[in-house]
Amino acid sequence: MADLSTCAPLTRASVVAAADLIRDHVHLTPVVSNSTINKLASTPRTAEDLAGTEWADRASSPAKPVLRFWFKCENLQRIGAFKVRGAFHAIEKLKQEPGWKENGGPAKGVATHSSGNHAQALALAARESGIPAHVVMPSIAPAAKIAATKGYGATVYFSGPTAPEREAMANDVIARTGARLVPPYDHPDIMLGQGTAGLELQTQAAELIASAAARGAADRTVYPPAHKARLDAMMAPVSGGGLLSGVALSADGTGIKVFGAEPSFQGADETRRSYLKGSRITEVSSLTIADGLRAPVGELPWGVMYTRGLVKQIYAVTEGEIKKTLKLVLERMKLVVEPSGVVPLAVALWNEDFRAMVEKEAGSEGWDLGLVFSGGNIAVDALVKLYS
Amino acid sequence: MADLSTCAPLTRASVVAAADLIRDHVHLTPVVSNSTINKLASTPRTAEDLAGTEWADRASSPAKPVLRFWFKCENLQRIGAFKVRGAFHAIEKLKQEPGWKENGGPAKGVATHSSGNHAQALALAARESGIPAHVVMPSIAPAAKIAATKGYGATVYFSGPTAPEREAMANDVIARTGARLVPPYDHPDIMLGQGTAGLELQTQAAELIASAAARGAADRTVYPPAHKARLDAMMAPVSGGGLLSGVALSADGTGIKVFGAEPSFQGADETRRSYLKGSRITEVSSLTIADGLRAPVGELPWGVMYTRGLVKQIYAVTEGEIKKTLKLVLERMKLVVEPSGVVPLAVALWNEDFRAMVEKEAGSEGWDLGLVFSGGNIAVDALVKLYS
Repeated sequence: MADLSTCAPLTRASVVAAADLIRDHVHLTPVVSNSTINKLASTPRTAEDLAGTEWADRASSPAKPVLRFWFKCENLQRIGAFKVRGAFHAIEKLKQEPGWKENGGPAKGVATHSSGNHAQALALAARESGIPAHVVMPSIAPAAKIAATKGYGATVYFSGPTAPEREAMANDVIARTGARLVPPYDHPDIMLGQGTAGLELQTQAAELIASAAARGAADRTVYPPAHKARLDAMMAPVSGGGLLSGVALSADGTGIKVFGAEPSFQGADETRRSYLKGSRITEVSSLTIADGLRAPVGELPWGVMYTRGLVKQIYAVTEGEIKKTLKLVLERMKLVVEPSGVVPLAVALWNEDFRAMVEKEAGSEGWDLGLVFSGGNIAVDALVKLYS
Repeated sequence: MADLSTCAPLTRASVVAAADLIRDHVHLTPVVSNSTINKLASTPRTAEDLAGTEWADRASSPAKPVLRFWFKCENLQRIGAFKVRGAFHAIEKLKQEPGWKENGGPAKGVATHSSGNHAQALALAARESGIPAHVVMPSIAPAAKIAATKGYGATVYFSGPTAPEREAMANDVIARTGARLVPPYDHPDIMLGQGTAGLELQTQAAELIASAAARGAADRTVYPPAHKARLDAMMAPVSGGGLLSGVALSADGTGIKVFGAEPSFQGADETRRSYLKGSRITEVSSLTIADGLRAPVGELPWGVMYTRGLVKQIYAVTEGEIKKTLKLVLERMKLVVEPSGVVPLAVALWNEDFRAMVEKEAGSEGWDLGLVFSGGNIAVDALVKLYS
């Protein structure tokens, strides 16, 4: 991973360059649609459904958005998550760094701390470049993610569950090994790498939208109006913000609006609260079932999202809404997505603030909304526990 | 559904014609591969793994096949299963039948009995042609399948669980309504329709195989030898035999070998036993978790598979092997496939007779094997029950 001083600027062009650099290492994952889920999203919520939620007072006038979803299936990405994009990009940039090789970099390897998917991603990327990976994981990380990280050949160290505990142990490991830190999100190389998912989503969806629009059919829950040729908006989950800031950079200057989605459980919606407050909240401790979304948003992603205004708004959903959405994705789309990965769809289906905003902005033409299914790493045992 | 006397002949050309007829009604489902699962299949089973199975005496010399899988994702098909192919084909042929319309056929509609996926398929196909569908289902059918069938607008009648009970009630319904019977498998229109899945698998896999082979890489668990340009074999689940006989017809004359896969629980492997015996066993009563594979093989499919020799062999697997395989597909491929749908992969992974045969036939070059993921209709509740 390159030094901050030599990093590429945080622009759409840098995301395009990142895509070129990692193309041979990552899958071009499919973009899919589902008319049943479009129709559900485009049906106003009933008074019965809204009772007992924070939107109970809008039961007589629920939002009536028209939504056509285009799902970027990063659950079908290598290691089962978008995280390989940033990891491969960071390692490719590191290999290009002047002096890294000469100073024994390849033998010292790389190190990181991660609740799961970044760990596997870095382990895989390091292995493909033949360099060692040292990974600090919280001991409460899902067993499947720990096993997979070890399976890719990384040395795994266990720490306490909070971010400071993980960081302290990572510093120890780095001091001992001389490995280069590859942080999970708060670095331009990572953000630009993750942004390639947003870039692909734009290109792939544009083709599908133009083709569906050309059919000229009247049903706006499936067919875009004839003049549509690209996405109106994209939404991605936000935790540390590597993915969301990258997606925002990939859309900069295109006119495509970008939104973030978070779980609200035990304050995990700290990015949403940071937006309200106007300054970044740096501590969060939540055990939301969306286990990939427990970290606080990082400094550099915050700068892209909030300070530069590239992410318009953040929306949150409850644990129950996440579970309901995951069930829908499993049963209707036949896809395994981890709880973190369905959070944007949960927002689009159940968050009346988001839905009212779409109704207002898009009117009867509706929006073509790109959603990132960020990962699919959930063990069957965990699924069983979730629904037992 | 056309009268038997006017049906198209059971040939590959008729499958090609069926594909043309249903093209606008069904999805061209993707064909995918997975290197982790190829590697697992291409690794000999250990002595520990074989202990306690019927292959324990081969623990010192396990089979060493090399297998590259190409999965036809009919779990992503409309209604979540290949069954729409046969249903749409039957209804399109019925609409072409001389006198059907004039004699009030469209108002009388169609009727069937089915444990699930065929019911949904016929309901959908009938609705798209604007004709009524009457469906007899066993009351023990999965709740999700019953709800979905009703959701497509069919009238549902409940019967006892055995085939004779279902057939008797279907006859009653037909006598009352004048509806035309569209049986779930034992009819040329159905067999030819289902065969279109095999046809697409051949075409799609050929492209992927040629492209992978052109890379010239040495790892035979991922890359076919340079001269390979098509599948060596295909395997599909067998119950009534509509799918398997159709797949066999789609391969007739191509040199691609075809195999069938069944659960062995409570005698559900009656097609395998019929092959051994040399005559068709017509009764079976099993509550295997592969709930789509509980029916005995039908007369016409049997004629194609056994009498004409278009299906070389049938292999069976245990309930535990099916569960183990389903878990692997969920966790590694991130795809929801119903238990019936993973039975062919279970055979390829765990049945030493099949594996030894592949080793002998394919040698170190290995086989490119097309497997049909026949459906994905399993409710989350049922998944939870399976793994609790």
